[in-house]
Amino acid sequence: MDLPKDKKSKKKSVLSVSSGVQQPPSVNREAFELTRKKKKKQLTAEEYVNGILNHDPVILSQAITIIESSRPDHQKTGQEIVEKCLPYCGDSVRLGITGIPGVGKSTFIEEFGFYVTSAGRKLAVLAIDPSSERSGGSILGDKTRMEKLSSDPNVFIRPSPSAGSLGGVARKTRETIFLCEAAGFDTLFIETVGVGQSETAVHSMVDFFLLLMLAGSGDELQGIKRGIIEMADAIAITKADGDNIKKSERAKIDFRNALHFYPPTESGWMPRVLTCSAVTHTSLKEIWEMVQEYIEMTLANSWFQTNRKRQSTYWMYKTIEENLKDHFYQNPSVKKKLIKMEDDVLLDKTSSFKAAYQVLEEYFKKKGK
Amino acid sequence: MDLPKDKKSKKKSVLSVSSGVQQPPSVNREAFELTRKKKKKQLTAEEYVNGILNHDPVILSQAITIIESSRPDHQKTGQEIVEKCLPYCGDSVRLGITGIPGVGKSTFIEEFGFYVTSAGRKLAVLAIDPSSERSGGSILGDKTRMEKLSSDPNVFIRPSPSAGSLGGVARKTRETIFLCEAAGFDTLFIETVGVGQSETAVHSMVDFFLLLMLAGSGDELQGIKRGIIEMADAIAITKADGDNIKKSERAKIDFRNALHFYPPTESGWMPRVLTCSAVTHTSLKEIWEMVQEYIEMTLANSWFQTNRKRQSTYWMYKTIEENLKDHFYQNPSVKKKLIKMEDDVLLDKTSSFKAAYQVLEEYFKKKGK
Repeated sequence: MDLPKDKKSKKKSVLSVSSGVQQPPSVNREAFELTRKKKKKQLTAEEYVNGILNHDPVILSQAITIIESSRPDHQKTGQEIVEKCLPYCGDSVRLGITGIPGVGKSTFIEEFGFYVTSAGRKLAVLAIDPSSERSGGSILGDKTRMEKLSSDPNVFIRPSPSAGSLGGVARKTRETIFLCEAAGFDTLFIETVGVGQSETAVHSMVDFFLLLMLAGSGDELQGIKRGIIEMADAIAITKADGDNIKKSERAKIDFRNALHFYPPTESGWMPRVLTCSAVTHTSLKEIWEMVQEYIEMTLANSWFQTNRKRQSTYWMYKTIEENLKDHFYQNPSVKKKLIKMEDDVLLDKTSSFKAAYQVLEEYFKKKGK
Repeated sequence: MDLPKDKKSKKKSVLSVSSGVQQPPSVNREAFELTRKKKKKQLTAEEYVNGILNHDPVILSQAITIIESSRPDHQKTGQEIVEKCLPYCGDSVRLGITGIPGVGKSTFIEEFGFYVTSAGRKLAVLAIDPSSERSGGSILGDKTRMEKLSSDPNVFIRPSPSAGSLGGVARKTRETIFLCEAAGFDTLFIETVGVGQSETAVHSMVDFFLLLMLAGSGDELQGIKRGIIEMADAIAITKADGDNIKKSERAKIDFRNALHFYPPTESGWMPRVLTCSAVTHTSLKEIWEMVQEYIEMTLANSWFQTNRKRQSTYWMYKTIEENLKDHFYQNPSVKKKLIKMEDDVLLDKTSSFKAAYQVLEEYFKKKGK
């Protein structure tokens, strides 16, 4: 279950936090505009990959657009790009960040991201946000919300792909991670909104899962779906500044006590709770150090490698099963039959099992078994 | 989303706890033996159903054996039996009981079951226990563990079906619930061992989910899978007697505090924590009253009905999807291809998604699209 040797040694490299800022990739705005014009026509997979490996953010952006496209020729090119980037991936820290609207997620990501790049990292910020689930507003939709980050040459921000099923959006986000890594980004933030099913998807593509929470009066958990807290490797109570400090400290203690009543994690890591403030920059350093401590620990006990391999097979099986289901549920005779059988089940006219078998029969009959 | 009227009025009936014991079904051991001999040859679905509706426990047992059988003719008969019993089902309280080995589950079920039948209920005790997941011993495998209950004419105990996949075992258990209800049992205990995946299956076929826990020294959660606590409508700390009372009371308070940090349930019910003892009979009455309070509350706010309907459609879709997957994964060319592609994914030779599409292509090619 060990990673190949070269990968393993590369992995270590991204853990070192240098205090100096790395040489940014060539980011000359005028040059970009020029290149952009030249690149209006679609490139070959090979050309995209070369651009990505040369750390060209414009080509990276275009390649992601190809991946997000539903055009069959784009999908084919997209798969080729991902395939060719794979050998250059994995040498990174993938961090999931979630929290309900109002928790101060953008501000946190802005300031925390800035801290991380000051520490010498190259950061890509992505989002999983199936639009159907949203109650309004789009995460990362408005880059201007993160002025500081978006003007940082060591940062690449990619808004959430537009409308689509969670499965589709998640697949695209996972492939985007690979492209960003091949383009030299060694730190990934994957943002979700914390109220839907997206967290499971994010959890299955990140190394560390950070949950942002507000200190409140017993309503801390309103809006957070059951199951999300159990995924968290750390809970950060946001907005712990000014009048809010006392309340946040209290919430921290309460959460710490509560976490003792959650069963242990598979990684061997004991989830932590801390308070932070994007305004006073409280705990940004501590959170980053905690993430690194986690990575070191899980590299040492092999959980890091095991988990990444699990995630890869998880996504293979997940993709297979999603496709099988789509093929089934989009079959016109199945659709028709299903409506009738679901009604029968709800009226107790037939059992769930017999109903299921009748719809299956309809499907396999058409397929010629 | 309301149940049909007759169902609804029937539903109320099982909620009344009469203090007197109901007339037991005709349970004359000699007569049974005689009937058993007569019934050696397989009956028709009609005959099984008649026997079940006449509350004949021997025929009920035989019908369950038919349901558990993998012989195609048995499966056909089994489906017919379930179908014909459906109109007589649903007027019951379905209670999931889980807890790790050592928590005192059998003793609890024995004494709690006895309390429940003394209160005038007719009780069926079933188990979901996919043998592959077990570390030894079989739940309900040894009826003699429950001497008091197994000699109670108002109790029907059915050991876990023998070896099989969780999906299969769960389907059989759900169908067994229907048969038991048609045979006049108005209270169902569905037992699981609390360390595997079975709890999700149980949770999706019961009205109330009771988690048994031991008071310990910080190790309370060892062995309990993440996610199970979030399913619980109540946690009962067992063995709260003698020297253990103090420790149990302490654990109760700790759990109560901790549960405040779990998000609210969909049913609107606030999960409770209490201590109990099967030896001193502490809280058995309280637990039963709590279950009834829950049923009354969820009938009033319609969660009870909504949840049962959801469970029915859940099992229809679940069965469909399990079958689609079986059909796929049992395909010989898929099997062969999958081994290769999984290796490639683990060695980073290909992406999870491309691997998935290649296996899917193999499958649909054979099927003629």
